[in-house]
Amino acid sequence: MPHDKQYTVAVVGATGAVGREALHMLEARQFPAREVRALASARSRGSLLPFRGGDLEVQELSAQAFEGVDYAIFSAGATRSKEFAPRAVEAGAVVIDNSSAYRMDPEVPLVIPEVNSGDLKKHRGIIANPNCCAAILATALWPLHAEAGLTRLAVSTYQSASGAGAQAMAELEDQVRQYVAGEAIDAEVFPYQIAFNLFSHNTPVGADGLNVEEAKVIEEMRKLFHAPNLKLSVTCIRVPVLRAHSESVVMEFERPLSEARAREILAASPGIRVIDDREHNHFPMPLEATGQLDVLIGRLREDPVFENGLAAFIAGDQLLKGAAWNAVQIAEELVKLDRLRSDTGATEAANPSLGV
Amino acid sequence: MPHDKQYTVAVVGATGAVGREALHMLEARQFPAREVRALASARSRGSLLPFRGGDLEVQELSAQAFEGVDYAIFSAGATRSKEFAPRAVEAGAVVIDNSSAYRMDPEVPLVIPEVNSGDLKKHRGIIANPNCCAAILATALWPLHAEAGLTRLAVSTYQSASGAGAQAMAELEDQVRQYVAGEAIDAEVFPYQIAFNLFSHNTPVGADGLNVEEAKVIEEMRKLFHAPNLKLSVTCIRVPVLRAHSESVVMEFERPLSEARAREILAASPGIRVIDDREHNHFPMPLEATGQLDVLIGRLREDPVFENGLAAFIAGDQLLKGAAWNAVQIAEELVKLDRLRSDTGATEAANPSLGV
Repeated sequence: MPHDKQYTVAVVGATGAVGREALHMLEARQFPAREVRALASARSRGSLLPFRGGDLEVQELSAQAFEGVDYAIFSAGATRSKEFAPRAVEAGAVVIDNSSAYRMDPEVPLVIPEVNSGDLKKHRGIIANPNCCAAILATALWPLHAEAGLTRLAVSTYQSASGAGAQAMAELEDQVRQYVAGEAIDAEVFPYQIAFNLFSHNTPVGADGLNVEEAKVIEEMRKLFHAPNLKLSVTCIRVPVLRAHSESVVMEFERPLSEARAREILAASPGIRVIDDREHNHFPMPLEATGQLDVLIGRLREDPVFENGLAAFIAGDQLLKGAAWNAVQIAEELVKLDRLRSDTGATEAANPSLGV
Repeated sequence: MPHDKQYTVAVVGATGAVGREALHMLEARQFPAREVRALASARSRGSLLPFRGGDLEVQELSAQAFEGVDYAIFSAGATRSKEFAPRAVEAGAVVIDNSSAYRMDPEVPLVIPEVNSGDLKKHRGIIANPNCCAAILATALWPLHAEAGLTRLAVSTYQSASGAGAQAMAELEDQVRQYVAGEAIDAEVFPYQIAFNLFSHNTPVGADGLNVEEAKVIEEMRKLFHAPNLKLSVTCIRVPVLRAHSESVVMEFERPLSEARAREILAASPGIRVIDDREHNHFPMPLEATGQLDVLIGRLREDPVFENGLAAFIAGDQLLKGAAWNAVQIAEELVKLDRLRSDTGATEAANPSLGV
């Protein structure tokens, strides 16, 4: 039967780096949207964002702006999400929240469609999109976990500027321009020069020595994998790359997992592309991950530091699988569930005897 | 007694990135050199290198060039070292070799003065300088190993362009210039664009999945620490940084080692500077390690992935502690040993009764 039901979608934080990519993904995926509403703070009101060959005029974020909205993708930070996500839900929308506001709320499913789409069904209006590092990591490692049972995981990240927003990406480009021109280098968005440098992720560090980013990756991986006892070591480092994150991982599994079997499983899994060409020294790189929906994984090899150990190197577009694409994927899953429900309803109406 | 003995020092590969730093270190440390001979390939013959306010004229590398040389610092690649180091030894020089040619030769000591200066005494003419990553790593971790017994070590590196030589550093700068000018980006020295990108170290990958750089770090760490059973996981990644390497490490120790005790030990150890300011998010960065003789270590925290686990982040100047400075330090140690011998000789001569 034809699925002509169309939805109204709001993108909150539409002018930001993730918001723009969300609009782009809705368009590229031909999301069944009768209307897309671009919402942002008052200072962006009236600015135009390209969409489907025309322009969307940015409207100011307010509780009223959610009237008639089916799905609201929030990418405007945790404070905005805390204030407006409940209002969007009250107005009848399902919220897909890119911020950290609700990720660890036990009432809120944290979802990567390739990993735990089943959790979607339990939502009560809000669905959380994982932290970018966790999203890329979980997507790449889930098929291996499903096969052999991940028990320990040590991760060191190579995180791009985009994770800190469009201004941070511009700062990296500006600093490089200043370097070439022989000018003094300004650091305003980041606490330190990012061009030709790298530093520990600039989120507050707790008493356990972990910064907020690392703590997020640890708790979100456990929630996504339904693996509360997974042992994780995470070190988050910002590098002078524009928009894709890379991660060096060493894994320990409950059961033996050969390098060949791991490669085979990953090659057959959705959302993943294996790039593991030893002969030509071709492995995942952020430049090749940029603009890709798939997460890249390679450098697969058995590793002696753990029992049943395996090492790998991962790269994924921070703005896509790490944020906007995963959010739009969740919206696509919600559409599927909604259509499945209306299909079932339609069948019952057309065939009342089945309803007995 | 006065130590006025002066030495003749040859720097082989004097026009390269490491050779230039070796000359700079000999000058800055006021190495007791009566003569410094700058040697390089024929095409550099006659070019001038600044030294002690004047210029050294580059001479062509040949067996004859080692006549009268006491110490020869080789930084011209493994092929040159294999050809000329034995000739330098025949001519009476002690060779300090920066290449990988002799590092794993059981007859050749592999030395970091802060770690295993005792091994120096066993040399038979050639002393090997470790791989840059291994040098920085071993310097930073040795005091912890001495205290608590390192058993497992997982390392992910963030290696600068300088490790691939002066041309690679220039390529990174050129690519950034091309990016700013909106031109196409050329990659000639590296197989892939390095500006705004990163990639697995471009050395051949073996059947075990390790590239040559990773294999070097593993075997050299075991040799430096006299720890043949140390389990290591090493992933070497090239990043768009000019000249200092960083390393993210997770360590397992035989005996418990608290974060506080580790910090205390490191702070009291030579060649190391602890930068671990959680409040101001100030930790080791390659830009701050550049030009420093000390290796920087921070992000110290107990880590749950290992028993008695500890994590840290390290940065060190690849051209200095990773190469030229360690080589000049070895030469300084050799001078100390030589002076000790002549002191003892002198004492014995002056006090013959002690000789009985």
